[in-house]
Parts: sequence; structure tokens; C-alpha cells
Amino acid sequence: MRAAVMRDKRILVDTLPDLEPQSAQVLVKTLACGICGSDLHALLHADKMMELAEASGMPRTMDTSRDVVMGHEFCAEILDFGPHTAKNLKPGDRVCSMPIVLHAAGFGAVGYSNDFPGGYAEQMLLTEGFLLKVPDDVPTEAAALTEPMAVGIHAVAKAQREAGEGGVVVGCGPVGLAVIAGLRLQGGEPIVASDFSPRRRALAEAMGAHVTVDPAATPVMEAWRKAAGAKPATVFECVGVPGMLDQIVLEAPPQSRIVVAGVCMEEDRIRPMLAINKELNLQFVLGYTPEEFAGTLRSIAEGEIDVGPLITGRVTLEGVAGAFDDLSRPDDHAKILVEPWRTA
Amino acid sequence: MRAAVMRDKRILVDTLPDLEPQSAQVLVKTLACGICGSDLHALLHADKMMELAEASGMPRTMDTSRDVVMGHEFCAEILDFGPHTAKNLKPGDRVCSMPIVLHAAGFGAVGYSNDFPGGYAEQMLLTEGFLLKVPDDVPTEAAALTEPMAVGIHAVAKAQREAGEGGVVVGCGPVGLAVIAGLRLQGGEPIVASDFSPRRRALAEAMGAHVTVDPAATPVMEAWRKAAGAKPATVFECVGVPGMLDQIVLEAPPQSRIVVAGVCMEEDRIRPMLAINKELNLQFVLGYTPEEFAGTLRSIAEGEIDVGPLITGRVTLEGVAGAFDDLSRPDDHAKILVEPWRTA
Repeated sequence: MRAAVMRDKRILVDTLPDLEPQSAQVLVKTLACGICGSDLHALLHADKMMELAEASGMPRTMDTSRDVVMGHEFCAEILDFGPHTAKNLKPGDRVCSMPIVLHAAGFGAVGYSNDFPGGYAEQMLLTEGFLLKVPDDVPTEAAALTEPMAVGIHAVAKAQREAGEGGVVVGCGPVGLAVIAGLRLQGGEPIVASDFSPRRRALAEAMGAHVTVDPAATPVMEAWRKAAGAKPATVFECVGVPGMLDQIVLEAPPQSRIVVAGVCMEEDRIRPMLAINKELNLQFVLGYTPEEFAGTLRSIAEGEIDVGPLITGRVTLEGVAGAFDDLSRPDDHAKILVEPWRTA
Repeated sequence: MRAAVMRDKRILVDTLPDLEPQSAQVLVKTLACGICGSDLHALLHADKMMELAEASGMPRTMDTSRDVVMGHEFCAEILDFGPHTAKNLKPGDRVCSMPIVLHAAGFGAVGYSNDFPGGYAEQMLLTEGFLLKVPDDVPTEAAALTEPMAVGIHAVAKAQREAGEGGVVVGCGPVGLAVIAGLRLQGGEPIVASDFSPRRRALAEAMGAHVTVDPAATPVMEAWRKAAGAKPATVFECVGVPGMLDQIVLEAPPQSRIVVAGVCMEEDRIRPMLAINKELNLQFVLGYTPEEFAGTLRSIAEGEIDVGPLITGRVTLEGVAGAFDDLSRPDDHAKILVEPWRTA
């Protein structure tokens, strides 16, 4: 099968051996797969990622000296079943799944593994028990956004906001936009969001932000105070570059909660005394629960979350490398979908 | 009146003008006042403290180019009442108070103010409405520990532990020991504490720690896992030096909560990715509520907290400067009380 492969810190298209579903596994055809900011990081810093994962007590899921096919935000179509499968779904059914696959030796991270290609390949192996059927009336590309949207839903859930409480979203890339969708879904206002990019601010409004600001012109906490008064805020850090956290700690009102959803791989500096003086709470978040993942697909299916505005590009396998470049310029795109079956 | 004054980054004994209680204020005689680690910081870095307070949106309570009499952990005796006081208590009654005093222009920070001397002076001005009567059978020196113990009670309350849950206490100085007392009071085990000092480990056991370790020999999280299994921990950071937080983030189990009670005035470095991978929560804490302060005095009075072991020294005003030196060597002391009325 054909795939866009990560090899020597580059993405190139190559033909890989066909996949064979093992016990409890299902062979699927990738219909659409989003490119995640973490994939951009991984292309350049996969070793550092693995090192930090290991330091966190997590498994080192990939050996970066070998090929990896990334892509963990997908909608796929069932092609074939391995042994020991119940086959309640049928070939041709469209499915989503958390990017995890069970195998004889344990779990594989679909898209961050040497053995389990992700959605930048024509085919993938998934675990039957994790499959969620995509309702017929839900567009494939909307279903493919289940995974990144679930990240936002989870961040909002971990914030443990009071009913009716709004939130501040710093950074309106895919994570920030998913958080806005999650805040909107839970209710509460105002949702105040900031991004330097006018395009992203427009997307934030499309996803439900009540107020958007350019932080070069207006500090986001100033906009929050204007909209919500001097009360504590729940601030979602969705940028993930060094210095952002300290900036938010400096500007947040006392007793605020900061949810760190932006993935900063580098070392960062903070001034603990500022956080102490204000008794701030920092909640670091990652991923989602299986229930949140399934609930997100349901919310997309029921029209509670409209992911349409987020899809700003579609590429073939040949277009993946270029899409990575495009996504490094945040003004141009939110989510680019890879369609491996497409040839032009 | 005589006082140990902070002047030009030194502590010296001098005679200051007598105090006159204003509206709603009470003149008291200081019976005993604990020396706090923050006072040691303030002696060397008061400007930095004020700068960080201001950056946090708090008032700059003192001008360090002028005299300051520190001391905010006290038990005192009522001498006289100012105008507009109810006089429900009587001269001679022993009292505790949060170190805050109301005056015509607002609040004063007793012990961190140019205008309101703290307990390293023979007399202080307090606000009548904040006074708590010390029951007759409670020793003065035990009542003087209400303030630092309240800090621990508050840190434990902010941790929002589950009933029966234990905790990890990193650093067994006065803050760590107060946290151990708070954990013991709330119930739950195991309480696992670490300190390099054998004397402090013995104090930790006296305050109720179930397990104590020397971190040079045994990582505290290893001791926690041995005592409590592989579950998430509530870890109290009670050291406050750069690097401690990152170390705890590195070693804490996933889903742990870290309560930052140690006061690190310097910039600190963390690796956010480690905290993200484990979905850690960091709760920074400061001070206590009025209810917690009053409840702490009650717990001391009822024998639920035995602060006796914590008092490792008593000094006159002339001894304050030397006590500051002594406290910079953590192996020798927990709490030194200043008794300004004592002459030798």
C-alpha cells in the first residue's frame, strides 16, 4: 500500500507491505485523516518526544531510526476482519476509533508507531472493540475531526467549570478551536479568545467565541475583565510555546484556573511566586477518555458541534509534505485533511 | 517601645515611638512571636518580594528603604482599646489574630509594613474584630503557632483530597510540618514525608507522618509507591527552591495533584510536557481563610494538634538576629519564638 512516510525527518511517499489483520483486529481503508500539530512537532523532534514520554513513565512507542506513518485523526472504511472478531459491523461501514490498537504484545499507538501505520497510509489496522460506526448522514470529513475535537471536550471537562461559567482561550489553532467548541457545548459565557491571526479569530467566532481579540492590540485578560468583570477565570493555554504560561500566570486574576492544553515540548520558565500570590491552579491535560471520544462523535453527528469551518484544506499523499509546510504558517490553515485514496 | 528592626538588610534592636490605638484598634503586648521562613527571605529580598506582590496585583505593603518590624505569628495580651471598640475582651486577655490591621486608609500587613510593627516588637496594634481569645489552658507559645499551622491546614484543604487519602510531604520545615499536622487532622494515610535532616524527620514523625525518608537515600515517591501502591498522589511541595517542582513533576504518578506550599521567590524551570503526559494538577497556595485561622486555634486548644515538638528555641529581641542565622541551618531548628518582654 502507499503511504506518506516519516523517514530521516522528512515526509516522503513510498510503497509499504500490505497489512494483515491479526486477532481482534480490523483492516480499514483510510478515508480522511487530519494533520495534527503534534505531527509537525514529531517530524522534527520525535526523539525528544519519546524521551519525554519515557521520562513520564509512558512507553517509547516508536523508534525514530525506522519508518513511521503518522496520522491519528481519521475516519475509515472497514475492508476486512481478522480472526476472533464479532463482525457486528460490515465491510463498507465507515468508522472512527481512538488511535490505539491491541496486539499480542500490548497496545500500539496508531500513527506514532513503527508497526501500526496511521492515517497517512491507504490502510490501517484497528481494534474491532474500539470502532465507532459513523452514522450515514455524517460527512466523512466531519467524522475525521472527532479526535481533535475530543481533545477540546476533554480539556473543558478537566477544567471542572461551574455551570454557566465562561472561559478564556489563548491561541485559536486546532486545539483552541476545539476548546471553544467544548465550551460552547457545555454552555456558559462569555467565551473570550485571542490569536494574532485574523483568520483564526474568524474561525474562533465561527466555533462560538463571544469575544475575540488580537493580543498585539488588547491583552486577552483585559478583554475578559471587560466582558466578565473582575472574577476568577478559567484560562485555556492552547499555544504551547515557552513563555506563554508565565504570561498567563502574570495576567490571570487571583484564584483562576489555567488549563494547559498547548503542548510545549521545551523547558519553560515560570515565576512560582506570582502563582502563589494568586493561588492559581494549573491543570495539565492530554487526550480524552473513551466516553469523551464517543460523545464527541455523537455531538458532531447531532449537529451540536459544526466542524465544517475548521477544514481548510485537503491533500493527497503526495501533498502531505507540503501541507506540513503550510501548517507551519498559522495564518493560512486550521485543519488539513489527507485523503490517501485520492490521486490528484 | 523596644523592637528588633529590619534596617538595611540587617536586624538590630532599637527603641521606636510608642503606639496609639486608632479607631477599632487594640494595643497589645507581644507575648511570643514565631520567626517565619518568609522573614528570612524578606530580610535579604524584601524588594523582590514587593515587586512580585505588585506584579501579582497585590499592594506594595512596605517601603524597604524605611524601617520594618517583622513578625506575623504571634500570641499577645490586650493592653488598651482605641475609640469605637466594643471591649468584649478585657485588658490582660490573651489573643491571637491574623496579621492584618484595618486603618483609616485600608488594610495594613502586620509584620510587613512600615506603619504596623509585627511581633518582634514589645507592642502591636491589632483590629478588635479580628481578635480570637486564647482559652486559659492553652500555653501562650502553642497559641503563637496558630498562624503557621493555619498555613498547613489551608494547603491541605486546597488539595481537596478524598476522604481517607494520604499524602506526600516534600520538605519538613515549618510549612511541611504544618501540612503533616493538617493531613493528620483530616485523617487518611499513609503520610509519607521526606527531608535531608534527621532532626526534621523526627519532627515529622512527631507530627504524625507514617513514613519518613532521607531523599538522598530513597526517593520520596518510591517510598509513597511502597506504602500506597501505584495510585495518584497528593504531593505537597514545602521546600520552595528552584528545581523542586520539576523534580516532583518528573517523579509523581500520573493524575497526581501537586500542592505548591513552598515559597520559591526565584524564577523556576519546568518541563510542561512531563506534566501534560501525566495530566498533573498544580495548586499554588497562600495563607488561609479567617475560618481556617480560627479553626486552627481551636484544634490547638482541643489538643488535636500538638505543636509542642515544633518549638525548638526562644530568644529575646537581642537574640533575633542570631536566630535568623540559626534558622538558615535547617538541621538545628523548626520554630524559634521571640519573646520581646524577656530581657535575658
